[in-house]
This record gives sequence, structure tokens and C-alpha cells, in this order.
Amino acid sequence: MGDPAGVGPELCLRALADRELSEVAHLVVFGDLAVLRHCAAVVGLPEPRRVIQENRWPDVCKKLDEPALLDIRGFDALGFEPGKVSGKTGAAAYRYIKKSISAALDRQIDAVVTAPINKEALHAAGVDFPGHTEIFAAETRARKACMFQYSQEVRASFVTVHVGYHEVPHLLSVDRIMDVIELTAAALQRINGRPARLAVLGLNPHAGENGLFGNREEERFIIPAIQLAKKKGYDVEGPLPPDTAFIPAKRKVIDGFICMYHDQGHIPLKALAFDSAVNTTLGLPIIRTSVDHGTACDIAWQGKADPGSLFSAVRLAAKLSSPVK
Amino acid sequence: MGDPAGVGPELCLRALADRELSEVAHLVVFGDLAVLRHCAAVVGLPEPRRVIQENRWPDVCKKLDEPALLDIRGFDALGFEPGKVSGKTGAAAYRYIKKSISAALDRQIDAVVTAPINKEALHAAGVDFPGHTEIFAAETRARKACMFQYSQEVRASFVTVHVGYHEVPHLLSVDRIMDVIELTAAALQRINGRPARLAVLGLNPHAGENGLFGNREEERFIIPAIQLAKKKGYDVEGPLPPDTAFIPAKRKVIDGFICMYHDQGHIPLKALAFDSAVNTTLGLPIIRTSVDHGTACDIAWQGKADPGSLFSAVRLAAKLSSPVK
Repeated sequence: MGDPAGVGPELCLRALADRELSEVAHLVVFGDLAVLRHCAAVVGLPEPRRVIQENRWPDVCKKLDEPALLDIRGFDALGFEPGKVSGKTGAAAYRYIKKSISAALDRQIDAVVTAPINKEALHAAGVDFPGHTEIFAAETRARKACMFQYSQEVRASFVTVHVGYHEVPHLLSVDRIMDVIELTAAALQRINGRPARLAVLGLNPHAGENGLFGNREEERFIIPAIQLAKKKGYDVEGPLPPDTAFIPAKRKVIDGFICMYHDQGHIPLKALAFDSAVNTTLGLPIIRTSVDHGTACDIAWQGKADPGSLFSAVRLAAKLSSPVK
Repeated sequence: MGDPAGVGPELCLRALADRELSEVAHLVVFGDLAVLRHCAAVVGLPEPRRVIQENRWPDVCKKLDEPALLDIRGFDALGFEPGKVSGKTGAAAYRYIKKSISAALDRQIDAVVTAPINKEALHAAGVDFPGHTEIFAAETRARKACMFQYSQEVRASFVTVHVGYHEVPHLLSVDRIMDVIELTAAALQRINGRPARLAVLGLNPHAGENGLFGNREEERFIIPAIQLAKKKGYDVEGPLPPDTAFIPAKRKVIDGFICMYHDQGHIPLKALAFDSAVNTTLGLPIIRTSVDHGTACDIAWQGKADPGSLFSAVRLAAKLSSPVK
């Protein structure tokens, strides 16, 4: 459900009420009945119809055939201000996340879709993770993982993400790039039902132009990883000059772009698919997708929030948890 | 005219014959009559109507009222293979460029628009510049200059361009960022006829998130430059998180984006405005714009080359050389 004070509750109400969505997945909101009732009244949306108590969950989890709420209590649904995240709301959001991860690890659910949380609220709750990705990696003890962003226009995986610009060259290695290629190829195979066509980007302008720019990161790390991937049978090309990687003709034929750093892939993603991309973490023992926006407190509890990203995240989670074709 | 073996000659023939273009500028192609006649015959385009000999140029240059060719001889128009650049074609292209720069410095022309050249051909001709930008900077002894890319969708200036990824942080300084802000503001004032609204991008993911990522490049260089620019009266905001800088809502209101490195601005430019962007060098004592593509030898002399980028470059040059409003 995400942070109770953000747009999470109203998005979950919309998801529970959406007929099309209920055809692609059996939705269970891990959240709070009192909060959702309160939100439904304020925003003018239907309340959750099916509510499950925590003690009943292990019995009913495998038999669900309609959208439901798992009522995780312990939050004072009236003693907080919608639109204002706090330690209390952060702590509640963190409980929903932990519960969902443990349900996924126990195979009670096939995938987790996360609604937005707030870093400061988590911090005020004494939770020292910067975001979902890190919580999921730690709680599931993932050995290798990478961020993958999915949209109709572009799909991109990341060799590095939330690190300083200057650190990126030191974090590149043949092994890491190879891991990201393999994780991305596996995810896209599930999504598309056929082998993925991948492109790996260079680090430097013009992909280094044969060593003219940079410290030969292309020759030292990127080209050997591509060669290794080809040897293993992957359909992969590169290193592409980063600037022409995302031209329309290229986007049409490439299923996944392997990006070396955060902005190399996030700039085209947000420029081309703002509001519709889905964020997911590959390499976890469970499937996890997420909305690609924050708690949006300025418009929370007003019925204005666009559920598009959440609905896309649900659809992608369903695809990723379907049997491999 | 660019490299004789590339798409330059046919694009110039199309420009000379274009009625709309002749209304925005008095076009003079600095090229070779024999090459253009040959190309016109091969491609099926009209030959240049008005031809000026070099010795007549100083007299007629200020009186021209129709599209013309300045016939710069010295190239064997039959002894080369179209579509195949060489030392000979590179040397010819270099002569046209040098001649145009000197005509611009002498105020015989108001602006130079460059057709594509080839780096290897220049090199084979013993010319050791990597491209137009460097030739123009050297020949005009420019004190400070920056690349500016113009398109309907995005306009971006660059604090650094053709350097390795790892060098960028070391090349940032308050002075350099301030120079690029001032050059960009002046160019956009000419183009739009009103003060420019500028945005400066951060270097790190999320613009460093208050020093969380990176070496505080935002706090050390970018924020002080923005503050200084504001004090000088410029309408400038930032540092923007690079990934959300180019979302549609932002592109609508920002006249110019100040980018820290090549791919930060070239990725969205090529993703959003592939084939229609115009490249220009700001800070030169003369006005210079350029097509945003190469010699395209694979399609040269076949009549297939799209003149859109050249025409846009001519239009932008005309705007940049109009009186300041």
C-alpha cells in the first residue's frame, strides 16, 4: 500500500476496483483497512470488498479468486495527516513491505508490487534503507541483482545505479556486466516469450571511438563482456555510442539496453516514457515490481493521482511470474 | 560543400534550388562547380545557376541577391569515387572550410553553415583536427566557446564535450559553467527575441541528492555558478536531476539546458530530435552552424539524403545573424 500519507492508498483502491486488472492477477493489497476506508470516504472511491485478517491469511492465501485486502493493523488511521509523511507513516509502510517479502519468500504470493514510500519517513521511523530496492535485496539476501526499467518505448537495465558520477568507472567489470546481461535476458524471455535482443552501451562519448576518449573502459570491460555473452549464446550487440542508442530505429529492434550508469538510461526513459515506466529489481529470489513515482504528497488523498504506473507494474509482475515459454 | 564524396554536394544542390530557403538567406555555396555539375547529372538535380569565380568574389560578395556558388578550384572532379572519402576529398573539404572562415572573419558573409566532412579523410590529407568545431576554434582564435545543439524539442549547451567519461568532473568550474550560461543566453536571445529561460543540470544521479552521491560537484561548481548567474540577472534554475530534466512538462518551459557532459544532452537530443537537430558553436567571433550528421557515404550521390538538417542549419544561422531584438 506504500506510505499511508501518500498516493498509495487511493491507487490501491483503484486497483482493487479495476475489472481488467483482476483478469491479469489475483490482487492482494498488503495494507490497512481503516486507512483505506478513510481514504475511500475522502476521495469518493469504493471500499475494499474482500478483507482478510492476518491470522486467516495462511489458510486463504492460495484460494483467493477475487481482489482482496490483507488487513495489517498497528497504525492509527485517524491520528495522521494525509499528504504529510512522518515516522509513523514510514513505519507502517515498512511493515507492509516486510510482510509482503516474507509472504513472497514463503510462496504465498507470486510477486510483490510496491506503491511509493518516502525515504525521510523511513528514516524518521529508524529504518536505514534508502529505498525499496535495498530493503528487498537485504531481506531476500540477493547475491546479485540489478535495476530494470520497463516501458513500451524503452527497456533498460543498470550496471550501476545510485552512486556518484565519478565512481562509475571503478564499478565496471566483465563479471558485473555479464550478470546484468544474463538477468536482463532472462527477464525479457519471460516477458516476451522469446529470446531477447540486447544492446550494451559504451561508457564514453561515441563509445570511446576506439580508445580516443576515456580510459579504454570499452576495451577493458564492455567488449569482453559482450564477447563472453555472445559465446554463451546471447543475442547482444555493442558497445553502442550512448547518444545514438535510443534513436527510434534502434528502439524498435532492441528489447533491452544495458546501461552503465543511472542517467544514461533514466534520461531517455523519463524523456520518452515519463509516468508509464515500471521499475523492477532483477536477480531477487522473488519477483518485485514498483511504480516509477514517489508519494506525490502534494496531490495525495485528492483523487488526482494517475494509477497508470501502478497498473503497469501489476501487469509486468504478472508477466514476470508466468511460466517460462 | 563538405566532403565531395559524401552527401554534401547533393544537399548543396537542393539548398541552392530551394525557394523557401532563398527567402531566409542569401546562400553562397563554397564548393566546386565541376563536382556539383557531375553530382547534378548523376542525381538528377538542377545545376547551380549563378557561379562566381574566386577573383571576382570580393567585388560581388556584398551585392548578391540570388543563390550562388563560389567556385573554389583545385580538385580533380572526375578522379575520385563518390561515396569513398580519401585524402584528396578531405583536402578539398578543408579548403572550402578555410575559405569560408576567412570570408566570415572579413565580414564578406554573415555566417557559415557546414556540410559534413570526414575525420579520416581530413587525417589522410594531413589535417590534424578531429572536426569542424576544432578547426573553427583554432582558425578564429576563440577565447571561449561551447557546443550548442538546437532542435524544436530540446536545446542544449555543453560544459564539456569530446572527453572521456572520467575526465568530466575535473573539467567543471564555476567560470566554465558561467561562460556556457552566458553564451547560451545570448544565442537564445537572438533566436527567440526575448530573454532565455535556462536550466542547469546536475552531474550526479538526482543532482547528488544534497551531497549523498558524488564528490559534491553540485555544491562546489554548479550551484555557485547558478547563484552567480542569477545575481547577473539571468533566468536560470537548477541543478536539475538529470533524468527528469527532459520530461515533456520541463521541455515546454525551458529554452536551453546547460549540460555537464556529451551524453547527458546528446542522449535526449537524438532520442527526441534525431535528424532534425542543428549543431552550432557559440563563442566564436563568427556565426557557424552545421548539419547534425556525417558524410553518409553509404547513400551519397544517390539522391536519397534528407536535406532537413542542412536546411534547419541555414535557418538557425540566419536567426543567429539577425540583429539582436
